[in-house]
This record gives sequence, structure tokens and C-alpha cells, in this order.
Amino acid sequence: MHPLADKVLARETRATARACRLVDDRVGDYAAILKDLFPHTGRAWILGVTGNPGAGKSTLTDRLISVFRGQGRRVAVVAVDPTSPFTGGAILGDRIRMQAHFSDPDVFIRSLATRGALGGLSRSVVDVVRVLDAWGADVVLVETVGVGQDELEITRMAHTTLVVAAPGMGDEVQAIKAGILECADVFAVNKADRDGADAAVRDLELMIALGGEVAAASGRARGHSAAALHARAQGAPSPGGEPVEGPWEPVIARTVATRNEGVAALVDKLEGHRAWLFGTEAGAARREERLREAMHVQLRDALTDAAVAALGPALEAAVHAVAQRTVDPYTASEQLVAAFRSAGAIAPGAAVAPGGGT
Amino acid sequence: MHPLADKVLARETRATARACRLVDDRVGDYAAILKDLFPHTGRAWILGVTGNPGAGKSTLTDRLISVFRGQGRRVAVVAVDPTSPFTGGAILGDRIRMQAHFSDPDVFIRSLATRGALGGLSRSVVDVVRVLDAWGADVVLVETVGVGQDELEITRMAHTTLVVAAPGMGDEVQAIKAGILECADVFAVNKADRDGADAAVRDLELMIALGGEVAAASGRARGHSAAALHARAQGAPSPGGEPVEGPWEPVIARTVATRNEGVAALVDKLEGHRAWLFGTEAGAARREERLREAMHVQLRDALTDAAVAALGPALEAAVHAVAQRTVDPYTASEQLVAAFRSAGAIAPGAAVAPGGGT
Repeated sequence: MHPLADKVLARETRATARACRLVDDRVGDYAAILKDLFPHTGRAWILGVTGNPGAGKSTLTDRLISVFRGQGRRVAVVAVDPTSPFTGGAILGDRIRMQAHFSDPDVFIRSLATRGALGGLSRSVVDVVRVLDAWGADVVLVETVGVGQDELEITRMAHTTLVVAAPGMGDEVQAIKAGILECADVFAVNKADRDGADAAVRDLELMIALGGEVAAASGRARGHSAAALHARAQGAPSPGGEPVEGPWEPVIARTVATRNEGVAALVDKLEGHRAWLFGTEAGAARREERLREAMHVQLRDALTDAAVAALGPALEAAVHAVAQRTVDPYTASEQLVAAFRSAGAIAPGAAVAPGGGT
Repeated sequence: MHPLADKVLARETRATARACRLVDDRVGDYAAILKDLFPHTGRAWILGVTGNPGAGKSTLTDRLISVFRGQGRRVAVVAVDPTSPFTGGAILGDRIRMQAHFSDPDVFIRSLATRGALGGLSRSVVDVVRVLDAWGADVVLVETVGVGQDELEITRMAHTTLVVAAPGMGDEVQAIKAGILECADVFAVNKADRDGADAAVRDLELMIALGGEVAAASGRARGHSAAALHARAQGAPSPGGEPVEGPWEPVIARTVATRNEGVAALVDKLEGHRAWLFGTEAGAARREERLREAMHVQLRDALTDAAVAALGPALEAAVHAVAQRTVDPYTASEQLVAAFRSAGAIAPGAAVAPGGGT
């Protein structure tokens, strides 16, 4: 066991922060630490919180932390939203309000910077969440803006995804529709005391209903009773306390985070999703599907890293050949894949010329 | 030469539609067709048009088609935005208005459906754009909503990216900031006759100025004169007609697409970016950077396809082992990479230990 991994498991805050940093930057013994910690993960409930800037995500996250802490749960926050006070880009009031959490040893807050174009962010988030899971978090809140290529991947890593919307944000609902609906498990219409809250809820309800019809039309069997539908629409277990079988249908809560209104009801709906995910066959199927996706992404990243390291100059040569149009990118990438595979079999690092002899 | 590729080069509309379909679905001889067509690509100007639904992207795209057709240029449209009339999800008026383009043999319109979570869309778009480039498009317009993991990748494939915004769409500018700014070359503030247009332009100007300062602070040398800056701020070549060296700074145009106002000036700004991209060292550097990224993505996809095909049951076994936590995903993916590489060996079992060999 790596000493730093040991200290994470012993819940040492500074060591955990250091492990997060190594993992985020992919330096030092980060790989060994991740491998050592992995058997100690799987306990945390990973809760994604996403939505446009200005919807009130951070305030709501702050309220959720308070509820979870009141239940005695250890909470970690991974903030990817650059406008979030958790990432440091805070107005003074926000930081003062959150001070309580920052000094609570059972709350761990880590912000991650967004990266350049070709990702790496979702990978960092996955790994940092694993560190915090091993640290003993009961709940890991992952706050993102929900825009950008990496962020939907991050959303798909969460067990439960909360999408925060606010009334009067123009075409917000349409924008959500475009990318987020497939990932949303629970919607919070925040600032629900404002004009337009009813309209926002109606829009979301319509959207969810349409989503259901599209799913039904595309042949996915649903086969649940109206009562079950209703129970699920409430985001709560059935009267017997058991979660309801069948696919999850997103539910909506109204909140006024600044006044702490509706937050307990929101947590009930989130817990309803968690009960469904861990207590039904459909939930198990979804967890397996997500795990398969995650493994594909992990494999894809590992392959790309290994290939870029192994191919180096051959890859550069391919880029230039494609630029000159002396080779097409399809043939070039096939040749690179072949070179990567045979280099791995013969001698690591020894690039083989495409079509070359023995 | 594949017969279908031949027909695409002969500009046969039905054959081109068929080639697009094969390439999009990745069925039949799609790979052979792409390889045959690639040497005939590289002529088209790929123009990305993105922005939230409701900003007026489709109407503006329609106007741009008219301008380009008036110049005698062949135009292709690839519509990925599900709310766009080009994708068929049109209100009646839109479709009637666009009818002229649909029946013009020098305009080719192709819509692509959005996919499931783990992409494939950006790959399809890249390949379909290549088919249309080979078909003889002088301009390929790629219309997206600009939200979602695939869509930023699509944006990065374009030579020139136009971001369409409209006043009074709430936190639109903030939302754009979060993901799109790094990709935007030209902004159109559409519906510029509405209240709030001046504010939207000012917000964008501020955002661009801040972006420049951030870039300067992060050490990227700029080194251009105030005059050059001003020339670039106009999105126009310098007085001598030559594009200005140095990094591109996004420029802003005001348009009222429904009344065809400001469209010619917008096209001038877009052409200014094109002149920069193809006429300066900085532009050449950007094209090379994008090409390198594209080649990385192509290699990543080819590796993943080959590995998933080669590993099949081993990959499934890894998913289950990780689910049971009998292996960590880092070790599992390393093992899968090693298995993939040695399975590609000419002589199985000939693997040499690292550092060994003669």
C-alpha cells in the first residue's frame, strides 16, 4: 500500500488533498495510489449537480451539504463549474456563507480547473471522485456547468444527476433539451418564488412526457401501471417502501435555495432515485450499462496514451502525410494501429514502419 | 475507384446522398468510399454555425446560403441541430422559405441525427463533410446547437466558427463563455433590432477583451500593434489587402436575419477569418494544430474500434471483474491494452519483456 493511499484511508485531510492533486495532474505515484484505493471505493453516492450559470447551483449545493451533514454523512464536493464559489471564483457573501463547510473536517471540497479542448477533465473527475470515495465520503457532489464535451461524460459518471433550472432564463429549457435531458434524473426549478416558475415546471413536465413517448415509440418496452408511473412521478418509493420497477422517469422539485425552501423535499426525490438505482432490476441494468461505458472510456484513454507514447514520430509523420494528402487519414490510422500492435509484440517502443519487412 | 465514389466526384446528387448515408451509418463499403474520396478533399471552406436554439441560426444559415449562391459557389449544409428546419423539424414557413435551396442542384442539404451518449456523431460529421467536400462544395455549413460532448469536437473541425447569439436570452453570454468562447471566430448578434442588442454586443466585447488578457497573462506572446489589433477587430484584411499576422481575435457582427440586414457585412467578417487562416503563419499554425487533434481523434477511434473487436469477451470479463472489485479499472485497462497488442503480433507468444531482447 502506497503511504499516501494509507493516509487517505485514514481520512487525513492534507494527504487526501495531496492525493487529489497528484491524481488531477497525473504526476508522481498517482497510478499506484489509484490502484491501491480502488478496492476501498464503491460506497459513496455520486450526485451530479448541473445547470446553467445563474440557476443557483452553488447555493443549492451548499444547502444539500447542510442536509447531508445533519444526517451525519461525510460529504465531498468536486466543483468543475468555473463560476461556482466552491472553485474560488466567489463573491464575498458566498464564501462567508460556505465558510462553515470549509472548516468542517467531514466536508472535503476540491475544485478542478477546466482544460483545453481534448479533454482530460472527465478523467480527472472520475479519478478524484474515487479518491474521495476511498476517503470515506458518503456523498460526493460533483458540480458542473453542463456544457462542453467533457461535462456530459462527467454527468454520466454520477449515480444521480440533478439539473438545476431557474425561471426566466429565456430558452433555457430548449437548451437543456438539447443535451441534458437524457442525463437528468431530478430537476430542481430553483428560485421558484419568481414569475415564470409554473411555466418552467410545465415546460419540464411536457418535455419529460414527450421524452417518454419518444422512448415508447422507439420500442423500449415500459410496461408499468399508471399507479407505478404516479409513484415514480413523485420520486418516492411505492407505498410499501419498495422502489418501483421499470425505467426511471425524471421528477421535478421546486426550491428557493436562498431561503432553504423545498430542499428537504428535493433530497427525498434524490433519495427516491438512489433507491430505484440500487433497489430495482432496471436500476441494476443502468448501473451495469454505465460501468460498461466507463470501462470503454478507460480503455480508450489507456489505448490512446499507450499509442501516442509508442508511436511518437510515426504519429507526427502521419499528421504531415495527411496534411499533404499523400495518405488518407483512414489508411494512416489503420497503419498506426497495426504499428502499435506489432511494436507491442516485438519490442516495446520500437516503431515498425508500415508495410516494412523483417 | 469505388463506383459510388466516382459518382460523388461526378456530382451526382442521389449517389452523394447514398454515400452520405453509408458513411453516416458506417455500413457497406463506406471505408473504401472515404479512402477513395479523400485525395479529392481539402478544397471546401468548412463553416461551423452554432448557438442556442432560438438565436436564429437556421434563418441566418439560409441567408448565408443565398449570399454564397449569389457568388456562384456550391454550398453544402450538414445540420445537426434537432430544432433546425434543415433537419426536418421545421415550422411550415421555414420549410417553404428554404424550398428554393432544397431544389437547387448546387445546394446539398444533409441532416444528421444526434446519437447516444458515447459519441459517434462527430465522427459521422467529419466523414460526411469529407464526402461533400469531394462532391465539390465550395462551402460546407455545419449547423449545431453547440451543447454536448460531440458538438465541441464538431466545432473544432470547422475552419471558421460562427456563434449566433440573440439579445434577451438570459444568461446566454455566460453559457457561451463556459464552453464556446475558445471556438468562436466570429459572433453574430442576431435580432439586432431588439432591445438588449447593444448590451449583448458590449458583453461579448468585454468577454473577448478578457479572453485576450487571460491569454496574455498565461504567457502567450501576442506582439501586434494597436493598428493591427484594430484591423483584426474589424475582421478585415489590413489596408494592403493582406491578412494581419498574430492570433485571431473574435469579431462581432450585428444581423437581423429575418430582414436580411447585416448579412453581407457578416460574410465579410467570415471571409476575414478565412483570409487569416489561410494567409498567415498563425493561421497555418492553427490549421496544423487542428489537424493534429483530428488525427489524434481518428487514431483514438480506430484504436477503440479495433480493440473492442479484438477483445470482445475479455472486455466483458473486465467489466464484470471491475464491478466485483476483484480488479481495479486501471490495471484492467492496462491488461486489455497488453492483450490487444500481443494479439496483433505476427507470432503469438513472441512478446519480449521490457528491457530485454536482442
